[in-house]
Amino acid sequence: MTLYRLDASIRVEGSHSRALADIVEEEWTAGRGDDTVIRRHVGTEPVPATTWPLAVAARMAPPEVDQLLSADAALFAVPLYNFGVSQHFKAWVDLLITDPRMTGEEPATAGTPAVLAVVRGGFYGAGSPREGWDYASGWMQRILGEVWKFDLEVVEEEFTLVGVNPALDEFKEMAVELRAKAEVNARERGRALASRAA
Amino acid sequence: MTLYRLDASIRVEGSHSRALADIVEEEWTAGRGDDTVIRRHVGTEPVPATTWPLAVAARMAPPEVDQLLSADAALFAVPLYNFGVSQHFKAWVDLLITDPRMTGEEPATAGTPAVLAVVRGGFYGAGSPREGWDYASGWMQRILGEVWKFDLEVVEEEFTLVGVNPALDEFKEMAVELRAKAEVNARERGRALASRAA
Repeated sequence: MTLYRLDASIRVEGSHSRALADIVEEEWTAGRGDDTVIRRHVGTEPVPATTWPLAVAARMAPPEVDQLLSADAALFAVPLYNFGVSQHFKAWVDLLITDPRMTGEEPATAGTPAVLAVVRGGFYGAGSPREGWDYASGWMQRILGEVWKFDLEVVEEEFTLVGVNPALDEFKEMAVELRAKAEVNARERGRALASRAA
Repeated sequence: MTLYRLDASIRVEGSHSRALADIVEEEWTAGRGDDTVIRRHVGTEPVPATTWPLAVAARMAPPEVDQLLSADAALFAVPLYNFGVSQHFKAWVDLLITDPRMTGEEPATAGTPAVLAVVRGGFYGAGSPREGWDYASGWMQRILGEVWKFDLEVVEEEFTLVGVNPALDEFKEMAVELRAKAEVNARERGRALASRAA
């Protein structure tokens, strides 16, 4: 069995989204033996900015889709950047949507089990000053869950900039708690992913 | 006086967002004589996908900001793509936000008059099947109006895929009406932009 793993963080060291995805992957591998993982680092090896317009103009199906479709399960680790979607994840999605297999009533990914790990530097909970400022998570769930119809589960972590941005120091305890919760959730979702792909 | 105009459409011919921006620009020029227009075509000459991560890592202020700050007014023409933000507009925003002048309580763009022309291929009105599927317009208004504090006015057009996608043929009359309304609005906003920059 094969897991397709996409990372959209532009950082390699200190990336919370990679850390959560590592946990999911660990549980996937533990549950399934020495299965294959296809890795796509769109944050550090991005789809060039000119690729999607070319694909649209040429009505070319991108070979990148075959990779995704060869997998039995998928894992997407995507941080919120500037209150919006990762430009690199959007570029990857735009490109894949040019493929007819990725649109319509029955896209080729329909029913494939998947986990989306979303990480936000700030805190966007109800009543917080940033409530309503996350414009990425909703979009990602629409695309993955409703357009591509993955059987999707979501792991979220917030306040990952605590400890990086000194202005957030007062939230240290809360951030530790949120991280611990996210890690527990990632472990559960990883274990579930391994059995869902059975 | 100088107008900064950004176009995010990946198309040159048949782009509705360019057409709306052309009207705004026409009124700007008519109102102000032979003023300068700085043009940035991020959809056809995109910021490379690797530029922003490099700027973040190097803490480099991008020279692109100087262009924007040299203008007295700004015009942003941005289509909705795949229910989300234009990847090229996001890449441009991400890059500019790395500049300290573009953040904080008093960003250098605060109070600068601006128009955002947003174009959507489908229809996202209340009660429609796509209500709630536009994840870009809200984000763009947050960034331009609240993060960068432009004095922002918005022109919107919907159903621009009518006539392109045969499945939407039944909405032809409605699309003609929506376009006419958007054009009137663009003309008014263009005239206002010329006087607001006075």
